[in-house]
Amino acid sequence: MAKEKKLVEAITSMEDDFAQWYTDVVKKAELIDYSAVKGCMIIKPDGYAIWENIQHELDRRFKETGVENVYMPMFIPESLLEKEKDHVEGFAPEVAWVTQGGLNTLQERLCVRPTSETLFCDFYRNLIQSYRDLPKVYNQWCSVVRWEKETRPFLRSREFLWQEGHTAHATAEEAEERTIQMLNLYADFCEDFLAMPVVRGRKTEKEKFAGAEDTYTIEALMHDGKALQSGTSHNFGDGFAKAFGIQYTDKENKLQYVYQTSWGMTTRLIGAIIMVHGDNEGLVLPPKVAPTQVMVIPIQMQKEGVLDKAKEVKERLAKVCRVKLDDSDKTPGWKFSEQEMRGIPLRVELGPKDIAANQCVVVRRDTREKIQVSLDELESRIPELLEAVQKDMFARAKAHRDAHIWDAHNYEELRETAENKPGFIRGMWCGDQACEDKIKEDFAVTSRCMPFDDQEQISDVCVCCGKPAHKLVYWGKAY
Amino acid sequence: MAKEKKLVEAITSMEDDFAQWYTDVVKKAELIDYSAVKGCMIIKPDGYAIWENIQHELDRRFKETGVENVYMPMFIPESLLEKEKDHVEGFAPEVAWVTQGGLNTLQERLCVRPTSETLFCDFYRNLIQSYRDLPKVYNQWCSVVRWEKETRPFLRSREFLWQEGHTAHATAEEAEERTIQMLNLYADFCEDFLAMPVVRGRKTEKEKFAGAEDTYTIEALMHDGKALQSGTSHNFGDGFAKAFGIQYTDKENKLQYVYQTSWGMTTRLIGAIIMVHGDNEGLVLPPKVAPTQVMVIPIQMQKEGVLDKAKEVKERLAKVCRVKLDDSDKTPGWKFSEQEMRGIPLRVELGPKDIAANQCVVVRRDTREKIQVSLDELESRIPELLEAVQKDMFARAKAHRDAHIWDAHNYEELRETAENKPGFIRGMWCGDQACEDKIKEDFAVTSRCMPFDDQEQISDVCVCCGKPAHKLVYWGKAY
Repeated sequence: MAKEKKLVEAITSMEDDFAQWYTDVVKKAELIDYSAVKGCMIIKPDGYAIWENIQHELDRRFKETGVENVYMPMFIPESLLEKEKDHVEGFAPEVAWVTQGGLNTLQERLCVRPTSETLFCDFYRNLIQSYRDLPKVYNQWCSVVRWEKETRPFLRSREFLWQEGHTAHATAEEAEERTIQMLNLYADFCEDFLAMPVVRGRKTEKEKFAGAEDTYTIEALMHDGKALQSGTSHNFGDGFAKAFGIQYTDKENKLQYVYQTSWGMTTRLIGAIIMVHGDNEGLVLPPKVAPTQVMVIPIQMQKEGVLDKAKEVKERLAKVCRVKLDDSDKTPGWKFSEQEMRGIPLRVELGPKDIAANQCVVVRRDTREKIQVSLDELESRIPELLEAVQKDMFARAKAHRDAHIWDAHNYEELRETAENKPGFIRGMWCGDQACEDKIKEDFAVTSRCMPFDDQEQISDVCVCCGKPAHKLVYWGKAY
Repeated sequence: MAKEKKLVEAITSMEDDFAQWYTDVVKKAELIDYSAVKGCMIIKPDGYAIWENIQHELDRRFKETGVENVYMPMFIPESLLEKEKDHVEGFAPEVAWVTQGGLNTLQERLCVRPTSETLFCDFYRNLIQSYRDLPKVYNQWCSVVRWEKETRPFLRSREFLWQEGHTAHATAEEAEERTIQMLNLYADFCEDFLAMPVVRGRKTEKEKFAGAEDTYTIEALMHDGKALQSGTSHNFGDGFAKAFGIQYTDKENKLQYVYQTSWGMTTRLIGAIIMVHGDNEGLVLPPKVAPTQVMVIPIQMQKEGVLDKAKEVKERLAKVCRVKLDDSDKTPGWKFSEQEMRGIPLRVELGPKDIAANQCVVVRRDTREKIQVSLDELESRIPELLEAVQKDMFARAKAHRDAHIWDAHNYEELRETAENKPGFIRGMWCGDQACEDKIKEDFAVTSRCMPFDDQEQISDVCVCCGKPAHKLVYWGKAY
């Protein structure tokens, strides 16, 4: 019991210390463990099952748009990494280098992939010869390494899991279309599946991906008012194609360069789920992504017939949702706390009185609401409740997000907001990087994105320098 | 057309040069491409889709036995790798070492995991405290690196994909049971899903895994008579537990060491599929693992109604199998060759005459048999035919395997067989490693396994030294 007690007691409240609350949840909900390798995490069964659900659903959505999966080597020869100038400058300072293979020193060192643009380009250079070979819409699921100095589980770790899509197209228009298509796919996935509202937009020159012509992003708002970049989609134009010599013969038999994109989502999403939905009792998982959606907990389990009935309920529910039965020898109270800590969306309480009344008590993790459900209606009511939880969680997260978007029209308003109001700050920007730098320097606030869906001009001058400005920017403190 | 022509013409016959035939098939069936990193392959969409099918089915079977998936770091600190003496001796000579992270030289070098026993042990040491924490039955899907000198796609590459299961148990009996359970799961999977018969058995001391008490293996016979180790399952006893200090408190409150197992299967299986089932027209895929099970090929596609009917047939079949329609502008002949090269189990030919007769012609990839099928019976006949192909492929592979098992009673018979008869050689062994070494030295033949299912003693003396012998061994040339 000592272990369980600790589980429930030791969680810091998010109002006291949000960072510590996050660390507590990650550990106590048994999502990760620390490893012998600094900055690399062990993803435990509950954490990995969330990733499997994300992966399964994203992969299904990818394939509907014609994506094919491949697997590229995890190593990149230094000379290949260096082929595109901006790209190598962006990544070289943070890669891990293999310098010895077996008992020998390598002639050329190999970096462990931080991302695979260069490998895909090298591959496409050979693969694509004619317009008939286009488009190529490939993706891989793998792990990547970035030698970060400060690390936090899921949010920033030296190794993380992700998918990286890499495409090649005949025209610039088609590449742009695919870039936006994947950004929208990401946004829909976050909203539908993770119940997490996002802002879609374009990154500024300063914030875009190393080597990209344009980077698009989805930004989500965490419970503490900080932004989390949750997925990015890059249009490379023909820059990589020119650096790597990826050319095809068009219908008129002329040599042309291809146009490329890449797009990725990572295990960082698990951090986002925690920080968007979690509360002071622990994790709260949206039903669609929850490895276990319903936990059946028998009350007075020693009484005749209770455990049998609980098993029967579990078997019946297994046909309509992902359900488990907790028949361990812990007290019901501990089981409730554990189910809450692990974020399981519904628990079904079933005791002798419930059985006598042919009912059970269903408790929602998100609202704590208790609902009496007739055992005759289990198979219809539980899926309905799961749907309601999913829908309500999105609505609450959206209301929270919308209540934390502030407009700033000048530098004083920006200062006032950045210092006192957690959330996104909307402010006009003149387009000069000096203003971005100054805002970051003064308030630790960065440009998150220039939204698509907002042609609104909230003023006609830059929130920083006061010069004429036409671009609306979402600013925010970021993870 | 030049490209297609090359596809069909350039395959070497397996009788002329089996190794070249293999390389041709791997490339021309578009399973892999070579990469900029020596010894590492690019797995292309058709190759990766086979792996996805293997992964999906194995994972489903694992989970039925209580396996949970996790993800461990890809790096192992040198000091951790060195904790178990036999293990480090087995792996240190063939690992890749990371010595630099970002711009700094690491204080301790990290190896890229060749396998993860040491990481799991370090994890379990913290995770397992009480008998209540047992058993742990974890698995991960990942890539591993072994710095091989000679490499061949799928069979031996510096990086490959695999799953590695790692378990911890309270008793030696339970660990042994899990070891055998997983070996049997592997064997059943190979036979049911890959239509590939295997011999199950135990490895000799010389051939077992570095650090294991016992290694069990499944060995399959390739078309050229060589053996391929297709999956292994290891019982570690409490050796690793003692080296790493993995102890739990039992019900009597005494400290005990855990007993461990590990077991793995890899992308090597794709090489096995090629070499068990392939023929001189290319790949032949068992329907259960085939990414595309049926290719619909319209004949005289320009004639009115043909393409529409072909699309309709494809749509109807999509409800009962994995089907594609080849409506490219190539000739039917080229399409047939491509479908054959790619190993797609059935093709459906559909031309104006067929349509008039309300039928199609189905051609089996494995036997070339042509079958007229009424369009009214498509949805029942095609799945029946896929089942027949799967079953017949297993029966043929088994007949081939059984026809290539030879008994040798003495050294001369062993020589005669090893030199002239490709396949497994059954011969008694005294248990002395000197005999194993001599047989390997003289004939390049190694002990593949000591079979479970054969208590038969084909003689009472060692096939090598003539001393008394009780162990029957399957010997063979191996990949």
